[in-house]
Amino acid sequence: MDAKYAFAQQIVKEAGAFLRQHLHDDLLIEEKTDFTDLVTHLDKQVQEELAQQIISRYPDDSIYGEESEQRSSLFQGKVWVIDPIDGTTNFIVQQTDFAVLLAYFEDGVGQFGIIYDVMQDKLYHGGGSFPVYENDHLLPSFVDKPFKAGLIGISAGLFAQENLGFRTIAEKSLGTRSYGSAGISFAHVLTGRLMAHFSNAFPWDYAAAAILGQSLGYSLIRPDGSQLAYEGRELVIFLPTVKIDEVKGVCESCNSL
Amino acid sequence: MDAKYAFAQQIVKEAGAFLRQHLHDDLLIEEKTDFTDLVTHLDKQVQEELAQQIISRYPDDSIYGEESEQRSSLFQGKVWVIDPIDGTTNFIVQQTDFAVLLAYFEDGVGQFGIIYDVMQDKLYHGGGSFPVYENDHLLPSFVDKPFKAGLIGISAGLFAQENLGFRTIAEKSLGTRSYGSAGISFAHVLTGRLMAHFSNAFPWDYAAAAILGQSLGYSLIRPDGSQLAYEGRELVIFLPTVKIDEVKGVCESCNSL
Repeated sequence: MDAKYAFAQQIVKEAGAFLRQHLHDDLLIEEKTDFTDLVTHLDKQVQEELAQQIISRYPDDSIYGEESEQRSSLFQGKVWVIDPIDGTTNFIVQQTDFAVLLAYFEDGVGQFGIIYDVMQDKLYHGGGSFPVYENDHLLPSFVDKPFKAGLIGISAGLFAQENLGFRTIAEKSLGTRSYGSAGISFAHVLTGRLMAHFSNAFPWDYAAAAILGQSLGYSLIRPDGSQLAYEGRELVIFLPTVKIDEVKGVCESCNSL
Repeated sequence: MDAKYAFAQQIVKEAGAFLRQHLHDDLLIEEKTDFTDLVTHLDKQVQEELAQQIISRYPDDSIYGEESEQRSSLFQGKVWVIDPIDGTTNFIVQQTDFAVLLAYFEDGVGQFGIIYDVMQDKLYHGGGSFPVYENDHLLPSFVDKPFKAGLIGISAGLFAQENLGFRTIAEKSLGTRSYGSAGISFAHVLTGRLMAHFSNAFPWDYAAAAILGQSLGYSLIRPDGSQLAYEGRELVIFLPTVKIDEVKGVCESCNSL
């Protein structure tokens, strides 16, 4: 697993370097579900490049990618989950606050996760049997503190939905922040910049964070506290494991969502 | 004016360097209006240091500071508007995304403004008769594009207030972002990372941005399009001047706020 983990870090960093070089290219931009859901030719190119490198080296493994046409089950065999550019809108408009995300599973068990904040050149990596690092700095486990000593990552849209309990949690905190990249926001939870992050996300958005958080005392769950389906889009919360009961209580109305 | 402008840049950069050195100090934190409205001993110390340096060198000038007990009128004489740490909560929790803000007025006319993004080491400076720079990179004027090609800076709280027109504008855009520092968000408007920023702000939060934006085609206004009072807390929008009519139309309900 060590060689595979080193290989994964290397290809993600190379993908980030490629994106930095092409930051000011003319982009071919397409709409996916609506005018705010964008994909560029670079999302597709990076996805293909990562998948091709993985399959060349590990021909029996399979790929579950944001920009893939076909996706394997995450629960069978050796599966690489790829989000080539998490925060595509930021990539297009801001040229910052976007990430390359990679997670590796064997029969549904996360072995390692990688979140690469490309413009800050910060590689969050580890999970499974590996310690969790920001670059070469070991990340500490969560030390308990109340919500009122932290900040909550949440989009304005999710905050404004009265039927979710999310707003109640956010209002117990020092305030909310919204960065436009789930991967980067989850990384901010790992470093304490955010105490928790609420998102409406796909498996490729949250798989790496879920694996990275485990040994540091963070959980990626549904609002009612149950396990994620790892299929389609779901409301998810990434938070300190010791806070699950507090959030579950507030979010009981979310159970039926 | 050149010497004053150079002096202003120097003391702001020194204040930023001081804050970087004291980033991990034990902070004395006090609540102002409620548990989310915080001030540290470093806000006060930086405010005093800046004020003392200004008055030593320019004894006839006066100070209008966030942490001042007495504030001069902004419309009479030579007035320095200081926010020693804009984004105090970020400073406390995140150790990033905070700014030192300075604006200089003569009889109510802005002569120059400075926003210093301390951790990114980016000094936005200029306005009045000075060109506007990010460090030594000249910033371009706004080039017209529709809201749907940009991002809107707004807090979740302001977005969720149905009686404001802000949500309507935000929903015409690619999405919203919230960084927890008005000064840094206004700077993001100047660089195009945000198309506009909506805030409930005090003069020390927005004075520098208002001066910086003028020659680049940006305006700092009330939601109904009228001029700011530069007194107390007000709902403000920093946006491309060519977009004022579009926002005014949506925000007619804001007139009576």
